[in-house]
Amino acid sequence: MKLYNWNVAPNPRRVRMFAHEKGIELDVVDVGEPGQPRLADNYLDANPHRIVPSLELDDGTVIGEVPVICRYLEAIHPAPPLFGRTPIEQAEIGMWERKCELEGMAPCAEILRNKVKAFDGRALPGYAIPIERIEALADRGKLRLGVFYEKLDARLSDAEYIGGDAFSVADITGFVTVEMATQGRNGIPEACSNVSRWHAAIAARESAKA
Amino acid sequence: MKLYNWNVAPNPRRVRMFAHEKGIELDVVDVGEPGQPRLADNYLDANPHRIVPSLELDDGTVIGEVPVICRYLEAIHPAPPLFGRTPIEQAEIGMWERKCELEGMAPCAEILRNKVKAFDGRALPGYAIPIERIEALADRGKLRLGVFYEKLDARLSDAEYIGGDAFSVADITGFVTVEMATQGRNGIPEACSNVSRWHAAIAARESAKA
Repeated sequence: MKLYNWNVAPNPRRVRMFAHEKGIELDVVDVGEPGQPRLADNYLDANPHRIVPSLELDDGTVIGEVPVICRYLEAIHPAPPLFGRTPIEQAEIGMWERKCELEGMAPCAEILRNKVKAFDGRALPGYAIPIERIEALADRGKLRLGVFYEKLDARLSDAEYIGGDAFSVADITGFVTVEMATQGRNGIPEACSNVSRWHAAIAARESAKA
Repeated sequence: MKLYNWNVAPNPRRVRMFAHEKGIELDVVDVGEPGQPRLADNYLDANPHRIVPSLELDDGTVIGEVPVICRYLEAIHPAPPLFGRTPIEQAEIGMWERKCELEGMAPCAEILRNKVKAFDGRALPGYAIPIERIEALADRGKLRLGVFYEKLDARLSDAEYIGGDAFSVADITGFVTVEMATQGRNGIPEACSNVSRWHAAIAARESAKA
């Protein structure tokens, strides 16, 4: 299986980390344009969704969307279970994984792409037409990220991991979100000591380097 | 199981439609503030995520996030399979379900909540702090919705249903998206005849009235 990857982007990292936790070796193909903050034209022309990552199976099927790629890997390689075992565990993990993505990572992307001039006309990935930056959206993203940190801290005061008592895909999405936020100078607020404790534990895993 | 519902909102409709297709009877509890475009305070105070829908299980566990609620229902009531049978089918359906949600429904919400004055200070659901409307985001949403219609039309020129040859959860998300867009006067463009054909087929299902 080929993973179309871009090393500087957070979303491919989620898949690399997930595969590492599973012990799955992927054939990683870098499709960033060297030295430029954008994907290479030949990848964009070949992939109708114009985003990374995507996973190409041996029969040529191309799967997009991080949680979908990860679920596929879970289906063909169930151990260790990273989406939970029972329906209730799966729901708990699934809910928190989405909270991290939509309430944490999405705001980080809003901040980055609507603030930084290098993203002029490319304020959203995946579009062939120009999407202009909206500075007010970067500010909104910052506000949302603050709310997310508080929510995550409250969750991690009750649970060791984001999804409950075991490491799961929710921790991967949460970890990559905090890494992205930190890179954008919105690191973990001092008051969020539960997030700091959890972040240190995840950062110490081998997969964090994947 | 109790479904906390708000009849005017699109997201609870996705769950109602999914449950109807499965033949699952949910105890539907309406939590909208009567006559107001907002949720009732007692629901907001009790639900830390401050959004609908949520599903309360008989043991008191509360599950949030539409795709997570639907997956839980699929796990406890597998027939008919609405998330696909094989890992590849599941991936295809999962990918398109997310495309509908993030590239179709999210823009509809951007248009509605950033344009309509009734949403002053509530441009995003789920936040206890004021989130101001950004008019430029409504315009961006409209642009994105146009791209989504084209993408969906291309997909439905190759496939009978959004996820492939069988009706699935992707059709539910796609259908509710098109209904929401139409309500916001962004109905199916004339050129998108495949979307029109598919929409008529889904609208004719009993579950479309759920």
